[in-house]
Amino acid sequence: MIKTDILIIGAGPTGLFTVFEAGLLKLRCHLIDALPQPGGQCSEIYPKKPIYDIPAYPEILAGDLTDKLMEQIKQFEPGFTLGERADTIEKQEDGTFIVTTNKGTKHQAPVVAIAGGLGSFEPRKPLIPNIADFEDRGVEYMIKEPEMYRDKDVVIAGGGDSALDWSIFLADVANSVTLIHRRNEFRGHLDSVDQVQELKNEGKINLITPAEVKAIIGSDKVEGVEVHKKDEEPFVIKTDHFIPLFGLSPKLGPIANWGLEIEKNAIKVNNALDYQTNIPGIYAIGDVNTYPGKLKLILCGFHEATLMCQSAFQRIYPDKKYVMKYTTVGGVQGFDGTKKEAPKAVVKKIE
Amino acid sequence: MIKTDILIIGAGPTGLFTVFEAGLLKLRCHLIDALPQPGGQCSEIYPKKPIYDIPAYPEILAGDLTDKLMEQIKQFEPGFTLGERADTIEKQEDGTFIVTTNKGTKHQAPVVAIAGGLGSFEPRKPLIPNIADFEDRGVEYMIKEPEMYRDKDVVIAGGGDSALDWSIFLADVANSVTLIHRRNEFRGHLDSVDQVQELKNEGKINLITPAEVKAIIGSDKVEGVEVHKKDEEPFVIKTDHFIPLFGLSPKLGPIANWGLEIEKNAIKVNNALDYQTNIPGIYAIGDVNTYPGKLKLILCGFHEATLMCQSAFQRIYPDKKYVMKYTTVGGVQGFDGTKKEAPKAVVKKIE
Repeated sequence: MIKTDILIIGAGPTGLFTVFEAGLLKLRCHLIDALPQPGGQCSEIYPKKPIYDIPAYPEILAGDLTDKLMEQIKQFEPGFTLGERADTIEKQEDGTFIVTTNKGTKHQAPVVAIAGGLGSFEPRKPLIPNIADFEDRGVEYMIKEPEMYRDKDVVIAGGGDSALDWSIFLADVANSVTLIHRRNEFRGHLDSVDQVQELKNEGKINLITPAEVKAIIGSDKVEGVEVHKKDEEPFVIKTDHFIPLFGLSPKLGPIANWGLEIEKNAIKVNNALDYQTNIPGIYAIGDVNTYPGKLKLILCGFHEATLMCQSAFQRIYPDKKYVMKYTTVGGVQGFDGTKKEAPKAVVKKIE
Repeated sequence: MIKTDILIIGAGPTGLFTVFEAGLLKLRCHLIDALPQPGGQCSEIYPKKPIYDIPAYPEILAGDLTDKLMEQIKQFEPGFTLGERADTIEKQEDGTFIVTTNKGTKHQAPVVAIAGGLGSFEPRKPLIPNIADFEDRGVEYMIKEPEMYRDKDVVIAGGGDSALDWSIFLADVANSVTLIHRRNEFRGHLDSVDQVQELKNEGKINLITPAEVKAIIGSDKVEGVEVHKKDEEPFVIKTDHFIPLFGLSPKLGPIANWGLEIEKNAIKVNNALDYQTNIPGIYAIGDVNTYPGKLKLILCGFHEATLMCQSAFQRIYPDKKYVMKYTTVGGVQGFDGTKKEAPKAVVKKIE
């Protein structure tokens, strides 16, 4: 059982910044995310795209935003359960909650902050009849651990940035990379398209277009895929892995069954006070919540997280009174023993 | 008469970021501030101090925060009335407001956003009987235009960072700089104290401690000051300027008489919707406002400014429906003709 003060569902920018604000209040956090790395959409969907409306950043790449937030919260030693989806929640007699993931990992905390963004990102799966039988037995919809492909034969399907970028990356890692797309044209960064063209010319990526994988061959695990190419007879390619990268689509998912008041696919919160949901002790912050005038902007999530932490503190320590200190005045004391603070003024004689 | 869409009272971080969010909605802004430069407290009180709780900035100097915000809003061409205090507001028959400063500058806008922080910073004045007679005639409580001291004789009084820093700066500009402090010890950055010591040793700063200025000499303008040094007879120093730098203290000031609901020296707003005050069309954002759970943090001001701009848009264009576009998707179109946008994906054949 993982125990913490604030259990955060979703490790996007709002969830990450919560760790900082909680840390100032000496509260510890643990984050659960279905994606294999922190950053949410910013890391998974558009890491190389610029954001222009983060205050005081005239421009920042979404991936860099994640890195900066990770650096900012490092000293508060957040815990992470990554690549797992929060599935069930149970309220205990002592008022705490136990949240269990789809892989059975259990977490206990007096406060749960749902910072789930648009929901957990579920891969779009191709319509191949027996594909479910091979999931985690050679079929992966998301690449979590690139090293598992070392010296293997890999077939990637898709025509967007993910398919292009992973083909490029794995060309150096796998024994062979075959990229299959149902059109001749790819949609992505010019740079990525050009690199794939080059690797194809060098024989490092085997390209088959326009074509589709229509069946998976194998007994216990993936051994090959059946490829249907236009104007040709279907043929089989021997492979250890089949990785269809057809994009991710966000789904509110199991959270929708937690008894929370839902409106327009988002969780209703009390924005006049602390972003608490209809269940005391469960808060919803960032894109996952809704209230009159709500804007799904990262900067709003930062504010919501900050106010929510104050309320969480009162819930956890009903008898303590917290007096806010500005970080410029009081500095920041990490759980790891580090301390950041402004250079102190000296009182010194001039003679 | 200066006309704009949103008239912002206060050019601190919240006021500045308002320009960006308004700009995305194609609304123009003009800012009024009593201080001689934008940035509010961040620029005037602690420009060289680090802030640790700006999201995605593990550390940023307050002065740099101002610079980043100025860069972010540049394309939306904000107007500034600096060094003047917003004094009166009058509602017009057409629903717009006219705000007049203490120097008589008039501004007209359909929406007023008060982002006045802790209030306008008023200098603490020394108790010298006839000092008021010499204000703007050689006595200045704040240095607005350093060039006006070129080749002049200057007396600075004070023992903190402002007195130290301006003595250092003016040592290179003025004909002579005399620094007077009632103690021998100065309180400030070690670096500044050491520099003053050095300039004193080089004869570039004339230091008199422990001493106080007790009278100003002059007919039409400052001609000298009477200095009382411990255990000595009072003596007169010839000078063109006397600059007492005894700190600034924030005062809500004339805004308190605008008919707004005030609580604990702050303006009450509707935080459940749009941060509007009790007077429709007048909003209050950032440290100047109050509501249940309010935290006086810069990051909260950013959020409040953003939601407020949406409401302002509806007020100015009641018949238009605004559909929010993410800056990553839609880019940012400046009023100055510039456009920032994410590199577009290409659709390209690989063969």
